[in-house]
Amino acid sequence: MSQQRAQSSGVASGGGPGFPDLPEATVARLPEYLRALHNLADAGHDTVSSEGLATAAGVNSAKLRKDLSHLGSYGTRGVGYDVTLLIEQIEQVLGLHETRAVALVGIGNLGHALARYAGFASRGFHIAALFDADRDRVGELVNGMAVRHMSDIAAVVADEGISIGVIATPADAAQVVADDLVAAGVTSILNFAPCVLAVPDGVDVRKVDLAIELQILSFHEHRKSTLTALPAKVVGQ
Amino acid sequence: MSQQRAQSSGVASGGGPGFPDLPEATVARLPEYLRALHNLADAGHDTVSSEGLATAAGVNSAKLRKDLSHLGSYGTRGVGYDVTLLIEQIEQVLGLHETRAVALVGIGNLGHALARYAGFASRGFHIAALFDADRDRVGELVNGMAVRHMSDIAAVVADEGISIGVIATPADAAQVVADDLVAAGVTSILNFAPCVLAVPDGVDVRKVDLAIELQILSFHEHRKSTLTALPAKVVGQ
Repeated sequence: MSQQRAQSSGVASGGGPGFPDLPEATVARLPEYLRALHNLADAGHDTVSSEGLATAAGVNSAKLRKDLSHLGSYGTRGVGYDVTLLIEQIEQVLGLHETRAVALVGIGNLGHALARYAGFASRGFHIAALFDADRDRVGELVNGMAVRHMSDIAAVVADEGISIGVIATPADAAQVVADDLVAAGVTSILNFAPCVLAVPDGVDVRKVDLAIELQILSFHEHRKSTLTALPAKVVGQ
Repeated sequence: MSQQRAQSSGVASGGGPGFPDLPEATVARLPEYLRALHNLADAGHDTVSSEGLATAAGVNSAKLRKDLSHLGSYGTRGVGYDVTLLIEQIEQVLGLHETRAVALVGIGNLGHALARYAGFASRGFHIAALFDADRDRVGELVNGMAVRHMSDIAAVVADEGISIGVIATPADAAQVVADDLVAAGVTSILNFAPCVLAVPDGVDVRKVDLAIELQILSFHEHRKSTLTALPAKVVGQ
């Protein structure tokens, strides 16, 4: 997926007692392990081998063992990892023991889909407010919540204790929205607009650009068609 | 002479002549560079320094120079990169000189948003078919295109020359959809369903899970709140 870290190394160097120093790539994989572990727990498993968990999460087992060693989880030889314990450890590190309030800005097609996305609530996120710049859209009910005007961001973010903003606006509006969110106190932004956001130190940005995902797949299509066009003996095997 | 082309050094192992052997992380950043370069071209720039392009793309300049060196692009000392030439080089490697036909499966909220996402068409992708398993949805017009039933996948993928499938179904339907797409001849899948797909060798899968993005931001929120709770001299700098 196309993601980019705009600010902050994500590494908690000098980061304080009890807070693990995790590589960004490890942080990005922890939610995958967590989802696989929940599936295993639902299926009645008490323990899981590193190979089993790695397969379920779609990574190789050496990488998984290294990632989990950062959390101080090494499993037990011949037994594997305790599923419930590992779920607790990962949820603790990810800060999922508390529900986080999210503001969603830009209620076009994508915004509607995000507002209705069931996966947020089931994994600890509460969409607490919807905003749009278009006054014709203000008051529209989406998933039972009324759309509010951008000019209310500062007040609502404070009232609702919102720390995460999701930007689903066109690219040319995204920086202004990011500035408003940051000014209101938001410290993490998930950006769906196809642009790079400038934010102050201490604000984390992750970017999702759907067309970039397709361009990456295009590279692989292009590579495969190049290989297919070659004589078999050059391609080998 | 602004830029040099490497003579297919670093050819993909067992790969074809002229096809560069690129790290996956580099491939993932090329679309970011491309977008930044198009913006620079639109603004009338003929050349750009590595620092300028790195800033526009949100990466550090050493990483950018290394990435572009894989393409055989080194820029010219004191001048930088030729914007038009670099756009051509990146588009060539990503295979964007040809439009790729995409099938979108699962026309719920997210599917509707994806079907209407303007960013696909503007960057070389043509959504050629929409599919859903729900017969009540078949025939519905989305962005001017009628939704077809899943059972038509094999015929339509062949007729339309579709190589990329986008899965926007619930998790429990995604594997069956992936199997159908692969059986029909699709060789790249963009998966929005929150699950790991099993696919044969030679099929590329990229996964977008919106809640995982939020969980990664949750980690940073958690880290920041832990730091904030510490005395300033411990946080340091």
